[in-house]
Amino acid sequence: MKKIINQPENVVDEMINGIVRSNSQLLERVPNTNVIKQINIPNQVALVSGGGSGHEPAHAGFVGDGMLQAAVCGEVFTSPTSDQVYEAIKAVDQGQGVLLIIKNYSGDIMNFEMAQELAEMDDIKVGKVIVDDDIAVEDSTFTQGKRGVAGTVLVHKILGSAARAGASLDELVELGQQVVANIKTVGVALTGATVPEVGQPGFVLADDEIEFGVGIHGEPGYRKEKLTTSKEMASEIVEKLEAAFNWEENEAVGILVNGMGGTPLMEQFVFFNDSYQLLADKNLHIDFTKVGNFMTSIEMQGLSLTVIRLADANWLEHLEADVTTANWI
Amino acid sequence: MKKIINQPENVVDEMINGIVRSNSQLLERVPNTNVIKQINIPNQVALVSGGGSGHEPAHAGFVGDGMLQAAVCGEVFTSPTSDQVYEAIKAVDQGQGVLLIIKNYSGDIMNFEMAQELAEMDDIKVGKVIVDDDIAVEDSTFTQGKRGVAGTVLVHKILGSAARAGASLDELVELGQQVVANIKTVGVALTGATVPEVGQPGFVLADDEIEFGVGIHGEPGYRKEKLTTSKEMASEIVEKLEAAFNWEENEAVGILVNGMGGTPLMEQFVFFNDSYQLLADKNLHIDFTKVGNFMTSIEMQGLSLTVIRLADANWLEHLEADVTTANWI
Repeated sequence: MKKIINQPENVVDEMINGIVRSNSQLLERVPNTNVIKQINIPNQVALVSGGGSGHEPAHAGFVGDGMLQAAVCGEVFTSPTSDQVYEAIKAVDQGQGVLLIIKNYSGDIMNFEMAQELAEMDDIKVGKVIVDDDIAVEDSTFTQGKRGVAGTVLVHKILGSAARAGASLDELVELGQQVVANIKTVGVALTGATVPEVGQPGFVLADDEIEFGVGIHGEPGYRKEKLTTSKEMASEIVEKLEAAFNWEENEAVGILVNGMGGTPLMEQFVFFNDSYQLLADKNLHIDFTKVGNFMTSIEMQGLSLTVIRLADANWLEHLEADVTTANWI
Repeated sequence: MKKIINQPENVVDEMINGIVRSNSQLLERVPNTNVIKQINIPNQVALVSGGGSGHEPAHAGFVGDGMLQAAVCGEVFTSPTSDQVYEAIKAVDQGQGVLLIIKNYSGDIMNFEMAQELAEMDDIKVGKVIVDDDIAVEDSTFTQGKRGVAGTVLVHKILGSAARAGASLDELVELGQQVVANIKTVGVALTGATVPEVGQPGFVLADDEIEFGVGIHGEPGYRKEKLTTSKEMASEIVEKLEAAFNWEENEAVGILVNGMGGTPLMEQFVFFNDSYQLLADKNLHIDFTKVGNFMTSIEMQGLSLTVIRLADANWLEHLEADVTTANWI
């Protein structure tokens, strides 16, 4: 294991200090927790997300006006405990309630829901949206149903903008369900990622092998095959998405190409270019585009393609609205 | 070589298309060139930078209001030709002149200066600033003197903001020289990077080995040693910077931790946290901080620490000013 760290068991603690110190006008750590919150919480329904660490910039990099008000950082690839999520809820509630955005992993669901119950006993209104955008496989290692991956960031963005615009907790829960139903993602991995406390990669692929559908914690995908071209990878993934969306010509969509942490922007842009061409050839209207590292898997080489059907014109406005976060660009 | 690309010889062309298509409201490609320019050039001295590709998001990701007006993309790790730079100058000049920001590599210097001569024959005023912030070694593989690395992005930011505020070409050249004299960088590498058309890493380190002072094209550094902790790496680099700056207590500085492409944000934040603590312990005022991938070396694992002495209070304002670029965050 070759990493720039100190003791593996201190990685998350030191990383949180680094995140907060490098964004000291925007972010603060809730004392004695692994919760990163916005310093000045706006007067609105507050949004909280989080999960295991190792997916940076998710989720702390999306805390700020117009996105999240707090991110809860679990140990690497491990759900945060319910008391940590509970602390986050208490730290951000402005009396209008708190919305939890949860990626669909069994541990996260359990701990976020337990925190919801604790907060409701304090008379804090809490709602939740569960993101399950990864259509590659059903019922994975840590998941019942589909996993939540890079599309989660689009949910942060749309709901964060709607919350800032004054949506109520109930409205946000309903909007969240609509948005999640219209976001789908498929990834491809070239290498595995190594959790610092484990010291070995979660899975290994041969030098000439790739795997489609791998999860952001290295969960198995749906097919291994020989390394091929960017165009072939884009074609495989676009067809998978098309089958799931069953889209019609002239539909408006957005695209997010998400790097897994070890894949340079050079490759992400080449792959984006191929994906864009394939989608444009299907006569979709591509109204929104993002390329970069948003929801990573430590140093994994690979990327994912997320498509959002822009079923409501307001969603595009929410996606394009300005934010003050560290990492939404 | 495991990369998400098509034909290696087409990587730069396809990447440029990806960059422009994913930022279609901001950027356009100058026809029949590898120049990426801002669509709506403001009425000011225009800034042009560039160099070999493989350093993304540098430089195209910094094109926009308040930074650059164009970026010239050479082949991977190869200087752009003088005619490409000349096309960029012609495409952005608004009659107030064009400033070239050049990283100190012999090929870049030669080709940018040749382009300057061509443009001056067209009566376009052209000035230049040469960035040589890498204090690790003198007279490297492609360089006379010191290399230009991640600190170049801070030069883009300060000069871009000053140009927007109305500085003349002569003023920008002078400001650029002052700023460059106050920026110093040292890097550390864990792995080498593979140029697609070469197919093999530029250098190889053992599994337990790191190298201090490696350049962004894999140029040799100043010392190899056994893998150590983030704190030890930060200490080595901070001491090197301290010896070069000879700073005094209470000086105001900014810090940039730059990932080389394959190093996850997790490690960058841990290293930032250690570097910040070391600099704070020396009673420096750390007024500006950035962490992320700004000037990469394809998929190299490693990072660099840049310190800028904020010798003038205006520099901090310029660093903090809003921009519209794709990748300055």
